[in-house]
Amino acid sequence: MNMSKKYAIGIDLGGTNLRVALVSRDGEIIKKIKEPSSGEILDIIFKTIDSLFSEDVAGIGLGIAGLVDRQNGRVLTSPNLPAIKGINLVNETRKRFKVPVFIENDANTAALGEKWAGAGEGFSNFVLLTLGTGIGSGIIKDGKLLDVSAEVGHMSINADGEKCPCGNTGCLELYASARAMIARAVSALEKGTESLLRECCKGNFYKLTPEDIYTTALDGDSLAREILKDAGRNLGIGIANIINLMSPEAIILTGGLIGAWNIYVQEAIKEASRRAFRELFETVKIIPSSLGDEAGVIGSAGLVFQKVIPHTEVMSK
Amino acid sequence: MNMSKKYAIGIDLGGTNLRVALVSRDGEIIKKIKEPSSGEILDIIFKTIDSLFSEDVAGIGLGIAGLVDRQNGRVLTSPNLPAIKGINLVNETRKRFKVPVFIENDANTAALGEKWAGAGEGFSNFVLLTLGTGIGSGIIKDGKLLDVSAEVGHMSINADGEKCPCGNTGCLELYASARAMIARAVSALEKGTESLLRECCKGNFYKLTPEDIYTTALDGDSLAREILKDAGRNLGIGIANIINLMSPEAIILTGGLIGAWNIYVQEAIKEASRRAFRELFETVKIIPSSLGDEAGVIGSAGLVFQKVIPHTEVMSK
Repeated sequence: MNMSKKYAIGIDLGGTNLRVALVSRDGEIIKKIKEPSSGEILDIIFKTIDSLFSEDVAGIGLGIAGLVDRQNGRVLTSPNLPAIKGINLVNETRKRFKVPVFIENDANTAALGEKWAGAGEGFSNFVLLTLGTGIGSGIIKDGKLLDVSAEVGHMSINADGEKCPCGNTGCLELYASARAMIARAVSALEKGTESLLRECCKGNFYKLTPEDIYTTALDGDSLAREILKDAGRNLGIGIANIINLMSPEAIILTGGLIGAWNIYVQEAIKEASRRAFRELFETVKIIPSSLGDEAGVIGSAGLVFQKVIPHTEVMSK
Repeated sequence: MNMSKKYAIGIDLGGTNLRVALVSRDGEIIKKIKEPSSGEILDIIFKTIDSLFSEDVAGIGLGIAGLVDRQNGRVLTSPNLPAIKGINLVNETRKRFKVPVFIENDANTAALGEKWAGAGEGFSNFVLLTLGTGIGSGIIKDGKLLDVSAEVGHMSINADGEKCPCGNTGCLELYASARAMIARAVSALEKGTESLLRECCKGNFYKLTPEDIYTTALDGDSLAREILKDAGRNLGIGIANIINLMSPEAIILTGGLIGAWNIYVQEAIKEASRRAFRELFETVKIIPSSLGDEAGVIGSAGLVFQKVIPHTEVMSK
């Protein structure tokens, strides 16, 4: 790597948004762009990179929602971005920009970001959970990214539960994500349940957001409170499972849903405390991320600077 | 470490048996002893070590069922061996035998054993599952032991399921272990369900073993078949969760229950194939261990020889 080049471009391609940022060697964002991740996504990615690219860019890191093949640079599957499935995004990007290109899962890059420049700096072993439309996860072990799938959102917590689009049944994501909360609110309102939620979105409850549910819950609405608490309880089951499996020093929570910390996350912590091995729960810290939705682009850029080197280096190719 | 010393003593202290072996630097067992793990367990451990100890022993590795504190050498909790909870087994053993002493969870040492000299030799990333009275697990990542709790048996797969003695609810172990199978058989027989299982153990069905259930299932008994298949299906849910989380190259199965491979494990593989991410399932091998119940003592001895070094080395103290 050319050490004279000051910047890396980090990309965070989630199910709903594409974020691209020019990041310094200190993990600081110099410039950033956010676009909806719809339409001709490859064109949008390349155009956005182009607008930040210069001679000073040492490389590009791609954080992609879905399963990625780090060795070969391909996206194996991306449930919310079917257009990029099977594409060799590393090769395509390298051809166009002639710099080293890395690929990682987007929750993994968010974990890298938090380790490099965020709430994870002081921990060697933590699990990051991204709580949004879906639930993603990245694991930092011994200070490095554990290069595993870490699809915590698709861990079954209900053997005979609902069918998930991923193929599994009873996935955590079906009970603890924003999508789950909205679906439950809409279903209750369709059935005629009384709730202040009816007054949101000018009466069109199909446009409800998690923020609406949280605000309404704070106003004392019992449906909204119940939805948040149940989702939190289910998140707590997932967190207990993670604690029993990975005995981390910390669990760092990020994503839009942590805005509902006082109900949703508090309930999760309570449930996890009831379920996880006591000896492990006592030593784990459950804390919010400090980089928020910028963790992904910072972590992707970190791949280029090898600040927090994942075990497998696509770089060396 | 004194390289002229040819042997290590490996200990595998499970819930029902204590196994102790003198192991060579090639991972071969020279002598072994098996005792029930009841009574004055510390005395039994020391007496057994004594009978194998000599000037040629480089150190002692302890594999203990339960949560262990590798840094400090203590047993944090051991549900099936309450007598050793809180004891600093490393210090006690070192005081007595004046050689380096290591401690690990017993499923972790079994994973180390399989990596060093068994079915895991050819894999850099695998998860070992011990399928017996309970369900334990050890994770090998990048050729080394991942020093995490790995309590796969205490991952909840049924949010509102049965209460587990560990404090969690709906633990995998409650649905897929030998103890679970026996409990279900006894309960069905108590309720008067017709089954060939009644004829086992001279009619005293409280003495049923998993072997009885398997043999009776092979004779076509529908209760026995159903019990094995259901337990296998639940194991498959756990395996799918592990695949989605750890994307291993292999899952290695060991413990008494793999004797029922053709029904129990086959059903687990079928269920996991339906549930795990297709892209991950296609690349994972689900295979039996090759060391069987000797994996634990070999792996414990491996700690001493640092054949497969865990990330944390108690040794250096």
